[in-house]
Amino acid sequence: MVELFDNCPKLERADVDSLYLGQGFESFEHRANTAPGFVNNFGFQNIPATRVESVSSSGGTSFRLGILALLSGLYEVVICAGVEKMTTVETSSALEIISMASDRPFEQWNGATLAALNALAAREHMRKYGTTEEQLAAVAVKNHENALSNEKAYLRKRISIEDVLSSKKICTPLKLLDCSPVCDGASAVALCRSSIASKFTDSPIDVIGTGEASDADFVYRDDLTCFRSTKLAVNEALEMTDLRIRDMDLIELHDAFTINEIIAYEDLGLCGKGEGGKLAESGATTVQGEIPVNASGGLKAKGHPIGSSGIGQVFEIYEQLTGKISGPRKVADANTAMTHSMGGAGVDALVHVFQIR
Amino acid sequence: MVELFDNCPKLERADVDSLYLGQGFESFEHRANTAPGFVNNFGFQNIPATRVESVSSSGGTSFRLGILALLSGLYEVVICAGVEKMTTVETSSALEIISMASDRPFEQWNGATLAALNALAAREHMRKYGTTEEQLAAVAVKNHENALSNEKAYLRKRISIEDVLSSKKICTPLKLLDCSPVCDGASAVALCRSSIASKFTDSPIDVIGTGEASDADFVYRDDLTCFRSTKLAVNEALEMTDLRIRDMDLIELHDAFTINEIIAYEDLGLCGKGEGGKLAESGATTVQGEIPVNASGGLKAKGHPIGSSGIGQVFEIYEQLTGKISGPRKVADANTAMTHSMGGAGVDALVHVFQIR
Repeated sequence: MVELFDNCPKLERADVDSLYLGQGFESFEHRANTAPGFVNNFGFQNIPATRVESVSSSGGTSFRLGILALLSGLYEVVICAGVEKMTTVETSSALEIISMASDRPFEQWNGATLAALNALAAREHMRKYGTTEEQLAAVAVKNHENALSNEKAYLRKRISIEDVLSSKKICTPLKLLDCSPVCDGASAVALCRSSIASKFTDSPIDVIGTGEASDADFVYRDDLTCFRSTKLAVNEALEMTDLRIRDMDLIELHDAFTINEIIAYEDLGLCGKGEGGKLAESGATTVQGEIPVNASGGLKAKGHPIGSSGIGQVFEIYEQLTGKISGPRKVADANTAMTHSMGGAGVDALVHVFQIR
Repeated sequence: MVELFDNCPKLERADVDSLYLGQGFESFEHRANTAPGFVNNFGFQNIPATRVESVSSSGGTSFRLGILALLSGLYEVVICAGVEKMTTVETSSALEIISMASDRPFEQWNGATLAALNALAAREHMRKYGTTEEQLAAVAVKNHENALSNEKAYLRKRISIEDVLSSKKICTPLKLLDCSPVCDGASAVALCRSSIASKFTDSPIDVIGTGEASDADFVYRDDLTCFRSTKLAVNEALEMTDLRIRDMDLIELHDAFTINEIIAYEDLGLCGKGEGGKLAESGATTVQGEIPVNASGGLKAKGHPIGSSGIGQVFEIYEQLTGKISGPRKVADANTAMTHSMGGAGVDALVHVFQIR
């Protein structure tokens, strides 16, 4: 929160009308209804403050609700935030907590953790489309490379394809380095009516599209190799603009597991069905490529503090579009960008589109 | 949900654009991100579905977000729902789970359960204003009386002042019959743009005011005998109307503990500060009184399935205002009504105002 005001010195507490806080689980900190305490402890007096929860996409959901709240006309300035403090508990307990993101009777009770569900998606993608473990690994290698120059990233370590392939098996074909890490994180952005943005900043970014959709739990679906919620969300978001997916200059997308990034390429429309693996190894989604994806390092290497990730993506887009990033992960001449959040194994998805004013 | 369609046969699944689901805790059912599964299992295809959590007021928050969502212009029809299945776990575990509604370092770690915090409020109210245990008990007696004729109520049992006073001590001065019960429940209402309501029902109810506010955690406050969040929320809600609190024909308010109803009388403005106890024993808030409060039986006797309660209140108001209730708890000539939800010990509050069209 300190950083929020650092980045936006003209914004004062009294300007803020409401807060939406994405948080995945009450169990990590043994505390529910976190939003009101959050705002009042930070000196915002008695403003409406609401926790929203859609596990991994909680931050994206918080952002969507902030948009709806402004459009409602009730508020002029809101804060959309996200938080998760996962290291309060042992890693084994963290995995037990995270398993709550999946269906109880048919997924949890059969031992299907989130890694297992995504491993099923990966296996089926390999079977149907010839996707390889090397292609999965290429996602991890790229995102670790990007994280190297991101001082906010958790895993700042260059890795090779061979490192990924030889890392500890988690759930075949996913290895340790195919998975995002358990970590702590918090993020916040201020969102205001377009007409008053110049009061608070000389470099406003417009949100020009928002999309959200849900789906049945993973094991109930016909096709395990795509996430319908992503497809519907990106369609809704792009329909609000006159843009197509290829007009994006950079994308921050959900890569909690490497297979997620490959499937997201396809669901977002960056390539045809089954071609995500090839796109991953082509280099087109590196920072220097045609369409940079997860220049921040992504959830994979920047880290995935569940409730925070969605807002962390928005922060990265803001920094990229306003030229606040230098060094190897700076995306050149970026004007238009997209974020993509996913809760559970595609149980819900949110897409937002941003543009320099 | 079946009942939702029973009560509104002209509404079809395809009409519903989005759902907001209030749920207090993921821990009862070991499942987070419940909203998407909820809608897709009920046959709503891929619509945006969001869980919101503010513990006891989650239902009220869900309703507020439904209003914002409609006002945003993105949606025409939304469902606001609430759910909690508390009996999945043992009662001792339920209390442990519910304790997450309070502050961890200064409340939970010192053993201050929700009952303990509300007992502090009661003790201080007794000390400052001379409120008596009999006056607290009068709230329970009234709400149990109302629940007798509510087939949806959990505790349908007439009780006397003496029954309350002699019931098991929970946290002095609160006894067992001063506390709402642990139980299961679910509720849902459909909300649409005012202009299209006649497509779905011949008896629409208008939502004419909404208010929401937050506060610091209980032990951090100067005055333990009032809840500022309620005062701010009711002011915001009434300011949207040309009405005053005394214009309400009935009120459903948060009475998880009897002291909550007494303090809510004062915070909502039904009486002066410190006069809530006297109002409780005066009979003015019975169904036949000047301003009926909790004609449903309230959280106290209808039951308090955490996330469901706020929407359950809205359902009661709908049934009362549309004349669907007969028998002893029917409020005569009711045109205007209010709901009041509270999360934790006044950590947040929501107020809504309703009127017959």
